[in-house]
Amino acid sequence: MKVGVCYYPEHWPREQWEQDAQHMQELGLSTIRIGEFAWSRLEPVANQYQFDWLEEAINVLHAAGLKVVLGTPTATPPAWLCKQIPDMFSIDENGNTRGFGSRRHYCFSSLSYREHCKRIVTALAKRFGQHPAISAWQTDNEYGCHSTTISYSEAATKAFQLWCQQRYKTIYALNAAWGNVFWSMEYNSFDDIGPPILAVTELNPAHRFAYWRFSSDQIVSFNKLQTDILRAYSPGRDIVHNFMGNFVEFDHFAVSEELDVATWDNYPLGFLTRDGVDEAEQQRYLRTGHPDSSSFHHDLYRNCTAGRLWLMEQQPGPVNWAPYNPAPVDGMVRLWGWEAFAHGAELVSYFRWRQAPFAQEQMHSGLCLPNGDEDDAAREVRQLCAEAGQLVNSINEAPSASVAIVFDYAGDNAQRIQQPGGQHYDPLSYTQKIYSALRQLGLGVDVISPNSPQLASYKALFLPNATVSDDALVNRLSEFKGPVMLFTRTGSKTVECSIPENLAPGAFQKLINVRVNRVESLPPHTRLLTDKKTTLIDWRERIQTSLKPHEICADGWGFHYQQASVHYINACLPKHDLLNLLEKTLQAADIDCLNLGPDLRIQRRGNTCFAFNFGPATIELTKPQLEHFGFNAEIGFLLGESTLPTAGICIWQCGEHSSPTC
Amino acid sequence: MKVGVCYYPEHWPREQWEQDAQHMQELGLSTIRIGEFAWSRLEPVANQYQFDWLEEAINVLHAAGLKVVLGTPTATPPAWLCKQIPDMFSIDENGNTRGFGSRRHYCFSSLSYREHCKRIVTALAKRFGQHPAISAWQTDNEYGCHSTTISYSEAATKAFQLWCQQRYKTIYALNAAWGNVFWSMEYNSFDDIGPPILAVTELNPAHRFAYWRFSSDQIVSFNKLQTDILRAYSPGRDIVHNFMGNFVEFDHFAVSEELDVATWDNYPLGFLTRDGVDEAEQQRYLRTGHPDSSSFHHDLYRNCTAGRLWLMEQQPGPVNWAPYNPAPVDGMVRLWGWEAFAHGAELVSYFRWRQAPFAQEQMHSGLCLPNGDEDDAAREVRQLCAEAGQLVNSINEAPSASVAIVFDYAGDNAQRIQQPGGQHYDPLSYTQKIYSALRQLGLGVDVISPNSPQLASYKALFLPNATVSDDALVNRLSEFKGPVMLFTRTGSKTVECSIPENLAPGAFQKLINVRVNRVESLPPHTRLLTDKKTTLIDWRERIQTSLKPHEICADGWGFHYQQASVHYINACLPKHDLLNLLEKTLQAADIDCLNLGPDLRIQRRGNTCFAFNFGPATIELTKPQLEHFGFNAEIGFLLGESTLPTAGICIWQCGEHSSPTC
Amino acid sequence: MKVGVCYYPEHWPREQWEQDAQHMQELGLSTIRIGEFAWSRLEPVANQYQFDWLEEAINVLHAAGLKVVLGTPTATPPAWLCKQIPDMFSIDENGNTRGFGSRRHYCFSSLSYREHCKRIVTALAKRFGQHPAISAWQTDNEYGCHSTTISYSEAATKAFQLWCQQRYKTIYALNAAWGNVFWSMEYNSFDDIGPPILAVTELNPAHRFAYWRFSSDQIVSFNKLQTDILRAYSPGRDIVHNFMGNFVEFDHFAVSEELDVATWDNYPLGFLTRDGVDEAEQQRYLRTGHPDSSSFHHDLYRNCTAGRLWLMEQQPGPVNWAPYNPAPVDGMVRLWGWEAFAHGAELVSYFRWRQAPFAQEQMHSGLCLPNGDEDDAAREVRQLCAEAGQLVNSINEAPSASVAIVFDYAGDNAQRIQQPGGQHYDPLSYTQKIYSALRQLGLGVDVISPNSPQLASYKALFLPNATVSDDALVNRLSEFKGPVMLFTRTGSKTVECSIPENLAPGAFQKLINVRVNRVESLPPHTRLLTDKKTTLIDWRERIQTSLKPHEICADGWGFHYQQASVHYINACLPKHDLLNLLEKTLQAADIDCLNLGPDLRIQRRGNTCFAFNFGPATIELTKPQLEHFGFNAEIGFLLGESTLPTAGICIWQCGEHSSPTC
Repeated sequence: MKVGVCYYPEHWPREQWEQDAQHMQELGLSTIRIGEFAWSRLEPVANQYQFDWLEEAINVLHAAGLKVVLGTPTATPPAWLCKQIPDMFSIDENGNTRGFGSRRHYCFSSLSYREHCKRIVTALAKRFGQHPAISAWQTDNEYGCHSTTISYSEAATKAFQLWCQQRYKTIYALNAAWGNVFWSMEYNSFDDIGPPILAVTELNPAHRFAYWRFSSDQIVSFNKLQTDILRAYSPGRDIVHNFMGNFVEFDHFAVSEELDVATWDNYPLGFLTRDGVDEAEQQRYLRTGHPDSSSFHHDLYRNCTAGRLWLMEQQPGPVNWAPYNPAPVDGMVRLWGWEAFAHGAELVSYFRWRQAPFAQEQMHSGLCLPNGDEDDAAREVRQLCAEAGQLVNSINEAPSASVAIVFDYAGDNAQRIQQPGGQHYDPLSYTQKIYSALRQLGLGVDVISPNSPQLASYKALFLPNATVSDDALVNRLSEFKGPVMLFTRTGSKTVECSIPENLAPGAFQKLINVRVNRVESLPPHTRLLTDKKTTLIDWRERIQTSLKPHEICADGWGFHYQQASVHYINACLPKHDLLNLLEKTLQAADIDCLNLGPDLRIQRRGNTCFAFNFGPATIELTKPQLEHFGFNAEIGFLLGESTLPTAGICIWQCGEHSSPTC
Repeated sequence: MKVGVCYYPEHWPREQWEQDAQHMQELGLSTIRIGEFAWSRLEPVANQYQFDWLEEAINVLHAAGLKVVLGTPTATPPAWLCKQIPDMFSIDENGNTRGFGSRRHYCFSSLSYREHCKRIVTALAKRFGQHPAISAWQTDNEYGCHSTTISYSEAATKAFQLWCQQRYKTIYALNAAWGNVFWSMEYNSFDDIGPPILAVTELNPAHRFAYWRFSSDQIVSFNKLQTDILRAYSPGRDIVHNFMGNFVEFDHFAVSEELDVATWDNYPLGFLTRDGVDEAEQQRYLRTGHPDSSSFHHDLYRNCTAGRLWLMEQQPGPVNWAPYNPAPVDGMVRLWGWEAFAHGAELVSYFRWRQAPFAQEQMHSGLCLPNGDEDDAAREVRQLCAEAGQLVNSINEAPSASVAIVFDYAGDNAQRIQQPGGQHYDPLSYTQKIYSALRQLGLGVDVISPNSPQLASYKALFLPNATVSDDALVNRLSEFKGPVMLFTRTGSKTVECSIPENLAPGAFQKLINVRVNRVESLPPHTRLLTDKKTTLIDWRERIQTSLKPHEICADGWGFHYQQASVHYINACLPKHDLLNLLEKTLQAADIDCLNLGPDLRIQRRGNTCFAFNFGPATIELTKPQLEHFGFNAEIGFLLGESTLPTAGICIWQCGEHSSPTC
Repeated sequence: MKVGVCYYPEHWPREQWEQDAQHMQELGLSTIRIGEFAWSRLEPVANQYQFDWLEEAINVLHAAGLKVVLGTPTATPPAWLCKQIPDMFSIDENGNTRGFGSRRHYCFSSLSYREHCKRIVTALAKRFGQHPAISAWQTDNEYGCHSTTISYSEAATKAFQLWCQQRYKTIYALNAAWGNVFWSMEYNSFDDIGPPILAVTELNPAHRFAYWRFSSDQIVSFNKLQTDILRAYSPGRDIVHNFMGNFVEFDHFAVSEELDVATWDNYPLGFLTRDGVDEAEQQRYLRTGHPDSSSFHHDLYRNCTAGRLWLMEQQPGPVNWAPYNPAPVDGMVRLWGWEAFAHGAELVSYFRWRQAPFAQEQMHSGLCLPNGDEDDAAREVRQLCAEAGQLVNSINEAPSASVAIVFDYAGDNAQRIQQPGGQHYDPLSYTQKIYSALRQLGLGVDVISPNSPQLASYKALFLPNATVSDDALVNRLSEFKGPVMLFTRTGSKTVECSIPENLAPGAFQKLINVRVNRVESLPPHTRLLTDKKTTLIDWRERIQTSLKPHEICADGWGFHYQQASVHYINACLPKHDLLNLLEKTLQAADIDCLNLGPDLRIQRRGNTCFAFNFGPATIELTKPQLEHFGFNAEIGFLLGESTLPTAGICIWQCGEHSSPTC
């Protein structure tokens, strides 16, 4: 449970560095990320490296007892390089070049840019790879940020043609796989394949899905290019990348295969309008962030690298980039840190040390104000460091998760590419709604890859975006004992984004005898009621089956099918109805739930329980709640107490007679 | 009253064709449209035709007793051709090329593309023109779909310059006609004229109106290029094109001059958000479509080719392309078929035989599911075929229409080009509102061209978009005896989109002594009340006249002027007030109306009456209603009964003592 | 108090000119603006001037006793010139060329275009500079209209690089000034600097702010290029330019330095949706325009040229370019004229003489209809001319202004460039809200430049957009005696758009001991209440200070700080609360206010008072109101009476015992 911060020595006068390092150390920080945007200072002119200042900065931090995470600067190639290899830019969906002037101005497929990345990363790794202060490397910065995953450049087009050739072998196979006979879209040669843009109307979803897979693969290989070098020259250091929130544009599980730790950048207030929650919730959580936004990502990214998790950037106060940027409520900056620890983070690194007075992020707060004075966050982080230091030895176990959401990036994207009519339905938001319901029911949750070897270890599985019909997954699920909940669109596409021969849910029909023979998407004003008063919205599927549905609509369409422990939930539900459905299903399977209400969240790491209040009113933890989570009055609280004001935290250790959940 | 389907043999294994043909025949289908997107299979490589498979497919259908409508494949030029003549692409309003990857990726003005169209159409016409199964040809597919009417390519620019030269003879005449002295927009040569895009602000409306006429003319000549060939090599077959719904981007009357039958593609649920109806109506008709959406188009396209009408594509279930795609209510697929017959359709062809499991339309339903099972539509179509077969000999007469809407494509577009301020007013929607009111009043309606020779045959005429001052039309109207209703903006533009010398309504002042000396457009929140409580919205005109208005506003502006049987309605009205105004006016002219309410619609073909229920509740036809439409209890119903559930239909034949209307 | 009109002789047959001139004279008009869009008639072919027709037109007007304002035609370069120097076009933010086809199709930075402007202006000035009818010249027309201030052309890029070189001397200084170390945005050469477009994400605000200053400077020099020529060849004539409403894209004070009179174009109904007022006000003032929209601009532009003001274009009826274009209420066209006179206008020139029947503005009304008949405006203007003629000798003094708003164009733009999160906050609208409150409180207002030498002459100063920390201004304010009200974001940026070293409000901390240590932007649904029930919205700042705030929020943030007579208003307020705050503050400083309510406005020129009713109901001026403005019953009214219907006007002269305000 370490605390760190992001720091930019190149932004500040040399004479201030020691003082900054001293101040960081005094706050209780241990780990400092630096260097990830400094290319123009590391190589101001082609091939003229200037690494001395960086070494000096590292030494200053080292001297103050601090460890350093060093970033490769490939997210911000300098102007001279862009001029030298203009083919490195990416092209947007309108055919415009995305030029110099901000950051991430490169195409993952540019071979010339990859060469320069190799060169600078190799030079840095050779120089600093063995430095005793360097504890880890960060590759690049926030892959995909600002919609940079997909580029339509000539380099990308060529790379895509090659990717297609490797995947399909012959152009006939590709035509067949994509169904190009439709609208005479057949190619005679791989060279004829263009990027999926600027067509007269909708492009073939198979084309777009292949381009998505390709683009995701390009990030995997771009990242591996760097990690290979870093592993070679800097053995024993963790290699990490900082992912983002609410972001599914590439397969994070695949990128993580070459990482030691999946880290991420958490801005709960900035994310609020992106979390897919309604306006009432946006008002309620204006200054706290949504109760299940941070933890969803903790529980996802922790499972990207086998249980290891860092927060590389954590919001310290108002940010500059959301539609509106309110200040967090007092105590929230500390709470976000503890919440991350509760979900297994080894490190929480705040962004940034000192607010920059210039350039794009000058209105992004930091631990300190631009003039060096401490901002509110510094006070809260000091408290966090002190508390974490005291409790670090009491909290050793991994986060407990009795149930898992199986999350498939390809499946999420398949839904985005081909979701006729469900115009206000967002697959990630729906996944988060399921996660939120499970958390409100007091459950610990893992968000895992379809390939996770741990599948069998959970009491229940939820598959919100297993859109792609997947025999291997189905086979593994067929051995699972507890409830398996499949949601709309499960198995509705092949790997080529077409409809399976046996219709949806494709291979999943092996698990449950249902076949979708009609789907409909519904406008926002349409709310259908089943005979048991469940409200269905957005999307509904009609099932052909011998099974009896749990509920029936007035027009005869069934809802909620079950075969043994496998459930098929063939419509979307609003939050409240979804929670009821999950609660009922879990209780029927003897999985213990306790509805904690909208604002209280409890997370367990082995015997240690953490409670957080995200709501506007003070919460008094009730006896049944405490009992459910194994509170022992004789042991009492490790931190805080049963009264939780807004942003309040308490921690306790379970007694012997803990409930089944704890 | 034939029923057909659209079929794509090239999408399915050869071995399935016979079975499909058999199944079609068994359902009762008679006419199969094929071939319209198959260019890449008909000519996979330049000049290497492969027509054998198509002949085989035609023969298989023929063998099952089915007739074939063969489409020319020019809406989907293959990739190799696009590579060969890249100047064939159209250019959008941002200057971007609209490339390969979907369909309709060509510019009507490309001379090189026209040559290739001639070539492939000639080859097909020669090979299949005399085949006994071929009953008709369809040219291309849905001209203008995906905003393809207007292109700003170099080919289009050159063609436009030539078009201008032919129309205006000298550049001085063009400058004068367009008023180019304004803002120094004068040209010195036809070569200087560019397409009307990418200017600093609004372009000259005369320029845009000329470009609209030109673009419409290009479709006329592109279509004629194909029909000339087809007539030469395939005598005796009908030549048709499939138009779209809610689509006015070119002059359909002009294109139809070379067609035997104007056919159209009807997707009532998909159109619902485009029909210009409010959200309450969108909710009410979510699963039925708007009661007057299909019939408006039937009554329009039937008048494009002198009474002949086909439905080339009819919605069979949920579609894939609307903002939301609900399932139709049970019985609606059959109702749409009967409704088309009631409005004079010779053929109703459903789209498509079997849902394609791949590519863009994989989520568009068909008569059969992708796995070959019958979808709901198949059951309803089987019933429709059976019923139509029984009644075909009883229903011989043409649809009855006592009144007509005079519809001018140029007038509609003139309003779009120059409608200062009326930001939420849509001329087509307003026309449809008038149509809808007439239908609710129990009237049969023709929607006719301003040039229609039948003008004199109606009891009343409605001119919602006679925007262009037209002496010839005025002269013909001056001989008309019944009520002529002119609406806002009538005669407000010359053919060059300027203001007539005698102000609006220009030449129409010959019919009624009114002159517009001020117009105003009103924001949505503004609702003006006349002294007789009529609500005026959106747009109002102030009239200089010696006539006394029927109603007066508080600020002294009059409303509703009448001279003999000619009415000038100088403001827009909401639906309810519009219906009242029309009812009052028609009754004053002794034209018999009966308000059927929002959901019930009755259509007559000679002595046969058809009643349809589009509403959510069951309707019991009342005695006055049945009497009004000449129901004779002794004869009874040909089909159904007086109780109409949602999607219910009944048909009866008028007795001797029928009302004036029937 | 002259009245004029805009006239386009080139639009009308030669034989009509005398009749037009006669008619103008008969109405009482004295000054006619002509020529500003006539380049294609003045030079139809390169270098072949045709000035005779213009001279004839001037002579015709002259013969009727009319004076002429002659416009240079540089806003509408003809087609042949655009073809000759295609580099003259500007480039938009998407990289597209903004071509020929409307107006303003040129880039201010094009050197070749500047040469042609010099040439045509010189030719015109030489020919007409000494003509006795010519009383003034107008340069170009509406600089910046249609977003033409900023261009991203190659010419602009080159000019910007040069501008940067002159401003920063070395590229190192520029990098430091802009903070380009951030994200490695450092340049190695001035040649590397691009225009601020098409980057991957937000560009450096310093880059954008510099580009804004540069673009504003380009207009200054473009204008000076013309005024230098005109002064040389046409001595004794006023040189003017016509500015626009609600338009802050360049520094109007700077452009005005070379003008004799700042004139502007006033379209109160067209501006209504741009005035930043809510929908209720948009409904209330649908046909009158907002009560404080015209006068804000009068009070601003009058202070651009030391008290001289003309209305070059005044709305005469419905216009064609707003989202909705209602007709003004009867009397409003006259009222707008009198309102302009009350605020010091020497000339009110209506736009246009006769409605053009062709081209883009054919639906813009004029004094006459296209057929020559008088439109409503002619009647009202005739009355205005008669009244003004009678009173011209009684109204001699300058508009009285007891308070001033200090308006900084750079400050307004700095807020636009870097205003994280305040998505629905508009700095100009907020300035206008402050102006509106002051006017409702019965005060005369000047809107002045931060450099105004008159600063000391007011009783109170309001600085809504002194965003840029400005030592010189602070020094001058420090000597000011009355209330100085500073609003949010004051002094929050340096001249390079970074955060001042001592944080906001930067240099203004010398006036009041406050330091902003946190800011937050709030979504529209968030309304915070202070302990005294003031509502705070949109934006709030937290102040570090030893001062006690006037009010406190529940979370402890203070609101409204005061040190001696300097106030810092650290949050935004809705209109009603803002008015209360200003009233309280002014009264505390013994500045006499009288709340006139929403609709009544009173303006003073020395001893003469003008009252206007913009509301829907008749207003009876009360005794206290009349007394407050020094009404003397014995003298009575110069015009009108105390009962003011909608659009009503009355004028009186103050007696001896006038209130302190009058």
